[in-house]
Amino acid sequence: MIVLTFSCPDRKGIVASVSKILFEGGANIIESNQYSTNSSTKAHFFMRIVFEPESLKGLNDINQKLNGFSSIFNAEFKLTDTSVKKKAAVFVSKEDHCLYELLWQKSSSDLFLDIVCIVSNHNILLPVAESYRLPFIYAPYRDNAIEQEELIKKEFERLKLQIDFVILAKYMRVLSKNFINSFCQNIINIHHSFLPSFPGAKPYVQAYQKGVKLVGATAHFVNEKLDDGPIIEQDIIRINHGDDINEIKRKGKIVEKLVLAKAVKLFTEDRIIEHDNKTIIFE
Amino acid sequence: MIVLTFSCPDRKGIVASVSKILFEGGANIIESNQYSTNSSTKAHFFMRIVFEPESLKGLNDINQKLNGFSSIFNAEFKLTDTSVKKKAAVFVSKEDHCLYELLWQKSSSDLFLDIVCIVSNHNILLPVAESYRLPFIYAPYRDNAIEQEELIKKEFERLKLQIDFVILAKYMRVLSKNFINSFCQNIINIHHSFLPSFPGAKPYVQAYQKGVKLVGATAHFVNEKLDDGPIIEQDIIRINHGDDINEIKRKGKIVEKLVLAKAVKLFTEDRIIEHDNKTIIFE
Amino acid sequence: MIVLTFSCPDRKGIVASVSKILFEGGANIIESNQYSTNSSTKAHFFMRIVFEPESLKGLNDINQKLNGFSSIFNAEFKLTDTSVKKKAAVFVSKEDHCLYELLWQKSSSDLFLDIVCIVSNHNILLPVAESYRLPFIYAPYRDNAIEQEELIKKEFERLKLQIDFVILAKYMRVLSKNFINSFCQNIINIHHSFLPSFPGAKPYVQAYQKGVKLVGATAHFVNEKLDDGPIIEQDIIRINHGDDINEIKRKGKIVEKLVLAKAVKLFTEDRIIEHDNKTIIFE
Amino acid sequence: MIVLTFSCPDRKGIVASVSKILFEGGANIIESNQYSTNSSTKAHFFMRIVFEPESLKGLNDINQKLNGFSSIFNAEFKLTDTSVKKKAAVFVSKEDHCLYELLWQKSSSDLFLDIVCIVSNHNILLPVAESYRLPFIYAPYRDNAIEQEELIKKEFERLKLQIDFVILAKYMRVLSKNFINSFCQNIINIHHSFLPSFPGAKPYVQAYQKGVKLVGATAHFVNEKLDDGPIIEQDIIRINHGDDINEIKRKGKIVEKLVLAKAVKLFTEDRIIEHDNKTIIFE
Repeated sequence: MIVLTFSCPDRKGIVASVSKILFEGGANIIESNQYSTNSSTKAHFFMRIVFEPESLKGLNDINQKLNGFSSIFNAEFKLTDTSVKKKAAVFVSKEDHCLYELLWQKSSSDLFLDIVCIVSNHNILLPVAESYRLPFIYAPYRDNAIEQEELIKKEFERLKLQIDFVILAKYMRVLSKNFINSFCQNIINIHHSFLPSFPGAKPYVQAYQKGVKLVGATAHFVNEKLDDGPIIEQDIIRINHGDDINEIKRKGKIVEKLVLAKAVKLFTEDRIIEHDNKTIIFE
Repeated sequence: MIVLTFSCPDRKGIVASVSKILFEGGANIIESNQYSTNSSTKAHFFMRIVFEPESLKGLNDINQKLNGFSSIFNAEFKLTDTSVKKKAAVFVSKEDHCLYELLWQKSSSDLFLDIVCIVSNHNILLPVAESYRLPFIYAPYRDNAIEQEELIKKEFERLKLQIDFVILAKYMRVLSKNFINSFCQNIINIHHSFLPSFPGAKPYVQAYQKGVKLVGATAHFVNEKLDDGPIIEQDIIRINHGDDINEIKRKGKIVEKLVLAKAVKLFTEDRIIEHDNKTIIFE
Repeated sequence: MIVLTFSCPDRKGIVASVSKILFEGGANIIESNQYSTNSSTKAHFFMRIVFEPESLKGLNDINQKLNGFSSIFNAEFKLTDTSVKKKAAVFVSKEDHCLYELLWQKSSSDLFLDIVCIVSNHNILLPVAESYRLPFIYAPYRDNAIEQEELIKKEFERLKLQIDFVILAKYMRVLSKNFINSFCQNIINIHHSFLPSFPGAKPYVQAYQKGVKLVGATAHFVNEKLDDGPIIEQDIIRINHGDDINEIKRKGKIVEKLVLAKAVKLFTEDRIIEHDNKTIIFE
Repeated sequence: MIVLTFSCPDRKGIVASVSKILFEGGANIIESNQYSTNSSTKAHFFMRIVFEPESLKGLNDINQKLNGFSSIFNAEFKLTDTSVKKKAAVFVSKEDHCLYELLWQKSSSDLFLDIVCIVSNHNILLPVAESYRLPFIYAPYRDNAIEQEELIKKEFERLKLQIDFVILAKYMRVLSKNFINSFCQNIINIHHSFLPSFPGAKPYVQAYQKGVKLVGATAHFVNEKLDDGPIIEQDIIRINHGDDINEIKRKGKIVEKLVLAKAVKLFTEDRIIEHDNKTIIFE
């Protein structure tokens, strides 16, 4: 199957044109979703189509015609083969719950991706990498984040890793602008609060002190501003006055791992389109 | 705006054909969703498209072409003008929470429909009808349900009511096969359990005795088999050992009224397609 | 039934002592909950007990002994007769959904309270007050909030209203410090966001712009700092990229009215104890 | 800490008496909950108290006095040391998600228990047992369930395992009455539906065919009647028309593992009291 994601300034006839291109290329449309930001002045159009191509030639024709169409309609599009696994580097610090959830969902085929290495600023989770026979890149703390990241990048090169996206699975170190851009912003982070509540450090302590009745977790793309990238998925869990900080953390971990895994699933299935620091998600 | 709902046995080219018809008729597609039951042998295709017609002539052309197309593709389709309110008859017995929720959501424009009358087998809620200046049809209990229903139908005629669908907002009387069919199965019921758990009478008492930890409500289309029609919407609320039957009922009422209002909203916006005793819902 | 709420610095023997006092006074304990903030240095103890008194004399004895006990243990306690309805003044502006939910839950006995008047800075909801035969106090906008509040207080006096607590059911005007204190902080507000996210004005617009995937509502006691009083109850509803601000508001209203009604219910049943700008809630 | 769970026919003075016994034994009550089934004719009383004993002698005194008290009040009680881990045998078939969740929550100390062995009617999950260095008891299918169970029991004896309770973590084989009783009904099962909906085999297929909008999972104690023991915990997840059976299973697995882990947590913390085929749960 092929997934087409597509976006452009909205105008009449887009669906008809794209459908015609697909039909003429012999594509059998399995699933299709579209959405337009309805604001009259500068509406923007988004589409996700899953189709079965008839032949490689047909697919090439489609690609070519979409290219032509896109330059006219000022569109961005992407064709992705769903049978190819995306390759992820998973960054962790000391906590293992998100990492284990990703590994388990991968091994049970609930997540369709390759995990090509585990990166950490601590060596605590080395045994996990070993038991799953995954390269473990240990890049201990440096005052200068750039130095630390250079070390990571060198290891990527040395190991000849091809990386499509990065998952920050409770990686407790802010990445540099430079590093973020080198992954074209394909970096998914899990923040342990219901953003924009409690950004920054120790959100559960903040939540406890504030006396909120729900805590949450937020998976988002990473941009240069801390905890401010486009939100992909959020969820919450109920807490009460009797929950101390440890219990809040325990409950929170369950939400964190599920929210992160959900966001990764959406990403691997090309269901997310970023626009204006927000996400359009075709579920 | 016009809503097109469309379904037919799945085959290649449906989206392209329909999109072409719409484009040629000058339609501006605002929203579109489709779905196919993926089973290879007898896949079925469903689509909902919202579009702005260019002109009445354009709309007529679209209608005509869809007619031709449908006879070839063995399709069913419907074009609905979203500016026309659907007309509902609301049936109640003694409980008022669902009725009030519908009336309130209607008056706040959260539900876009006309309530043309209130029908009841009791006269307890007459004052509600009066305060909203709605005809109240009182059809007290008869051993013979048909007689009771005849009385209701006569009142419909006498009052010259045009009725698009029926909402059973806690109407505690089983309707006859004949009555159900006379509304083309456009009858939405709220059942106060998470069906198929606890069908029939006194579901909260059954739930209490069973010791479940959640109770739910189910909005469904009514068919000839009791509590077995296509499910539109369900939701649940948590209960615990300390909740007696009254407290379970109290919590349940909140879910009931919200689930029913949600189902009615989906219906009034032509978001539901029935197929094989199930519902496809384009949200 | 009598509800005893009780709190004091924690130390050994409190439960035994209080239980003994109740037992000797002939009380039959129906329900009991306790909680201690477990921090070793200055743990604080909270308790809520529901009991059936044997006689008025027994109840008086209990009251007297608790008084003695409290001065020794530095405790605060309150005995409340559950058969007496608390009297509420409901403040509104233009939106009616919270008001209607309170009125409906009251009339269906799901909320056990008296609503003694409706106060508003607009006259839009006057007809609602009339249809429920409730005094409507119209206090239109003044630059000087104090003047506006004086007008309200004068009406309270003129109508000889006894008011136990105030419900701000979407009252869009900040109250003065003086007014808040005159109700001993027994003022419950509904804020239409998941605090501390989006305090202040137009939280749904903020939520839309931020692209969050959930919106919430927060019921809290009002203190002198805007939207910062002790949180009583919170809940959320899922939104997605397709929801514009109107749809977010519509979904939000459902959460708002339920969260406010829940908080009011907890208050009327004496289930809330405030401590350190947080709430202990015995459900 | 010591947990006291206690239940007896309700009558006046129970709390006072038990509190007095604890106070005289030097206990410091940390947490206390009680509940009474309020039905006038045969009300039953339940209590859970967590306390810090002053000394072993004090604890012994408390135990002795409670014994005396219990024979008078016809009560059942249990004193449990929270520092002692309960020992579990985990039964599995082919699916690993519940097993992994238990192992992870144990290793992260979110669950406080010992897993003493893994039992299976298949050998697929042997490598998991090996990687966690746990005994793996392989008891392949026999027509005669009793024979299969005898094999398991023999292995328990040979390995000299002490087992406090059994967790059926997706064990797809019905246990004999005899086996169930030999564990005093301390057997927790996870059923992959929202019971009483869809008992028996293939609940997700049933759910798909019925077209429900939510699927759930139920953790319950096992009794002699299939899928009919006292319910401990339930939760649900939303599905829609687009989810095929595989996707429903995938979503369901997330609920299953969390509901089972929650039930196990409640059990290990002595928060569950069984009564009349239902559970009282002190959270």
